[in-house]
Amino acid sequence: MSEDKKVTPVSAIGEFGLIERLTSGFEKVNASTLKGVGDDAAVIDNKGKLTVVSTDLLVEGIHFDLVYTPLKHLGYKSVVVNLSDIYAMNAQPKQITVSLAISSRFTVEALDELYEGIKLACKNYKVDLIGGDTTSSLKGLVISVTAIGEADEDELVYRNGAKEGDLICVTGDLGGAYLGLQVLEREKRIYLEHPDIQPEMEDADYMIGRQLKPEARKDVIAFFKEAGLKPTSMMDLSDGLSSDIIHICKQSGVGCQINESEVPINEESYHLALKFNMDPITCALNGGEDYELLFTIEPEDETKLGADENFSIIGQITKKEEGTVLITKSNNRHPLKAQGWKHFE
Amino acid sequence: MSEDKKVTPVSAIGEFGLIERLTSGFEKVNASTLKGVGDDAAVIDNKGKLTVVSTDLLVEGIHFDLVYTPLKHLGYKSVVVNLSDIYAMNAQPKQITVSLAISSRFTVEALDELYEGIKLACKNYKVDLIGGDTTSSLKGLVISVTAIGEADEDELVYRNGAKEGDLICVTGDLGGAYLGLQVLEREKRIYLEHPDIQPEMEDADYMIGRQLKPEARKDVIAFFKEAGLKPTSMMDLSDGLSSDIIHICKQSGVGCQINESEVPINEESYHLALKFNMDPITCALNGGEDYELLFTIEPEDETKLGADENFSIIGQITKKEEGTVLITKSNNRHPLKAQGWKHFE
Repeated sequence: MSEDKKVTPVSAIGEFGLIERLTSGFEKVNASTLKGVGDDAAVIDNKGKLTVVSTDLLVEGIHFDLVYTPLKHLGYKSVVVNLSDIYAMNAQPKQITVSLAISSRFTVEALDELYEGIKLACKNYKVDLIGGDTTSSLKGLVISVTAIGEADEDELVYRNGAKEGDLICVTGDLGGAYLGLQVLEREKRIYLEHPDIQPEMEDADYMIGRQLKPEARKDVIAFFKEAGLKPTSMMDLSDGLSSDIIHICKQSGVGCQINESEVPINEESYHLALKFNMDPITCALNGGEDYELLFTIEPEDETKLGADENFSIIGQITKKEEGTVLITKSNNRHPLKAQGWKHFE
Repeated sequence: MSEDKKVTPVSAIGEFGLIERLTSGFEKVNASTLKGVGDDAAVIDNKGKLTVVSTDLLVEGIHFDLVYTPLKHLGYKSVVVNLSDIYAMNAQPKQITVSLAISSRFTVEALDELYEGIKLACKNYKVDLIGGDTTSSLKGLVISVTAIGEADEDELVYRNGAKEGDLICVTGDLGGAYLGLQVLEREKRIYLEHPDIQPEMEDADYMIGRQLKPEARKDVIAFFKEAGLKPTSMMDLSDGLSSDIIHICKQSGVGCQINESEVPINEESYHLALKFNMDPITCALNGGEDYELLFTIEPEDETKLGADENFSIIGQITKKEEGTVLITKSNNRHPLKAQGWKHFE
C-alpha cells in the first residue's frame, strides 16, 4: 500500500456526511425510480401503486445486547423499525425480506425464537416475509431487514414538504425507549458485578417495553386516512426529536421552534429520568428509538387532529433564517443539536 | 436458562433445512405478494409491471477475504451477485439498496473505493441505488444488498417449471471462480509464510477475474427476448451446478441426467485444476460462484439457441423416479450431490 494515501477516520465526517459522500455521483437511470436515498424509504413507480422500500441493518453489540434482549423481542423489533419507516412515508408496508448472519453459538432453537418475533410482527402488521439470505458470521448476530410498501402517488409524505407556519406534531410520548435502555444497562452492570442481587426493574416496565418491543404507528396512518389529513412532512423518530426535526427543516429549507413545555413525556419516564439524574427533556430530545411519528400540518388542519391524546403540537415551522430552536419553559432560546448516530465516535 | 431445552446446532440441519424451518408458518396476507421465499427473488404485483426483489448478505471472513480482495471489486461483486438473481427470474434489475456494517478500521477512503465498485456496477447494469443503512460493527465488514427488478407477468421464469424431456443448458463455463479462489488462497498462505516470495499468478488471470469480478448474464436475458425464447425454468449458478440443478429438480418434481462430457470447462481452468490435483469436473459441479445461468428449455426450442458458444446443452430432464444423475465420460451413473452452503460445518 502506498503510504501517502489520505486517510480520514469515519468519525471525522459523521453518519450523514458519510452517507452523502458515499451516495453522491450515482446517476439516476430509470424513470421508475421516483425517490432514492434521502427519505425514510425509496419510491418506485410501477405505473399502478407506487412501491416503497426501506432497509435497516442491526448488529449485535451495536444495536442490541443479547444479555437483556429476548430473541423474540429482537425479531419483532427488527421488523417494526423498518415498517415504521414505511408508515413514515404515509404508505402501507406489504412485504419484508430478512437476512441473517449468525455465529456458531446460535442454535436452531434460538433462531426459532427470533423468527417467532418476526412472525408475530408480520401477523400484527399484515406484511409478508418474501425472502432473505441466511449465512454465518465469524462473531455475533447481524440482521438486515428490507420492507416494501405501497401507496398512491398523492398519499406519499416526504421530509421536504414543511412550510413556514406549519404546526409540528408528534405522536405518543418521547424518551421512554432511551430510559428503558438505561435501566437495562444498569441492571446488566449490577448483574455482572454482583450476580446474586435481584434485578430492580419493577417501576420501569413501560420504558423497558418501549426499548425492547416498540410498535410502529400503523394506527396513526389509518387515522390520517379517515380524517382526510395529509401532513406536509413526516418521519419516524428513531434518532431523537432534535436530530430528526433538523432533518425535516434541512430538507424543507425551513427553521423551527420547539416548545419544551409541549414535548410529551410520560410521567413514569419523567420520574425515572430524575432518578437517573438526567433532565427529562434531554431524554425526550436526544433519546431516540421511540418510533413515534414526527410530522407537520397546515394550521387549518389542526381541528382534524381532534382531541386525540395521541397527538401533541410541540412547535411551529419558521423561516430558515430563524434556525432550529428550543424555547425552554423559562422562555430561553437554545439551538437544537443533532445527535444522530454516534456509533463511530 | 432452563437446562432441558432442546439445542440443535445449525450444522445439523444445513442451510436449506434452516431456511425451510424458519420461513414455514408465515401466512401470506397480501394479494400483491405473488412469490415469496423459495426462488431467486420475490415477486410483487403492482397491477402494472411486476416488482422482483432479491437480497444477499456478505460477511468478511465468510464470503470475502480483504487480504486479496480489492474493495472496488468487492463493491462490484456485491451488487452483481444480486442482479444475477434478478436476471435468473428473466427480469430486469432496476434498483438496489446497499447496507453496510463497518468496524473502526475502515477509513472513508476505503469505503470510497468500495462504493466506486458499487457505482460501476450500477452504471454497467443500469440500476439505481435507492437506499440503505450504514452502521458500525464490532468486527469486520458486512454488506447487505437488495435488488429490485421488474418484469411482465408472462416473462417471469421460476425454478419450478422444468418438465420431463426438457434440455438442460448452462451459459459460459464453470469452475473458474472456484479455481481462482484456490489460487488466491494458496498465494495468501505462501505470502504469510514467506513474505519475500513473489506471487505466482501469471497463468490464472482468467480464473482470478471470475472470482473477484464476476459479471451477471444480462446479455443472455437480452438474447432470450430477441430470440423469442422463454426457458421453462432457470436459476443462477451460485452454489455450484450440482446443488443448483437439484434445486430445480426438487421444485419442478422431476429428475435429471447431466452428461459430464458436455459440462463446459475453460481450458485454463482445466489445466489449473489438474495442477491443484483436482478433478476438473468436480470443480465445475461443486465450485459455485460462477454466476452463469442454468436453465431448461423445451426440445423444440433448441434451434433458437443457434450456434452461440455462450450456451452448452449439458443434459436432460427426466422423471422424478430416475433421480438426479451424472453420466460420466466412461458412461457410469453417479448420483449428484448437493454441496450447498457449508459455512456452518
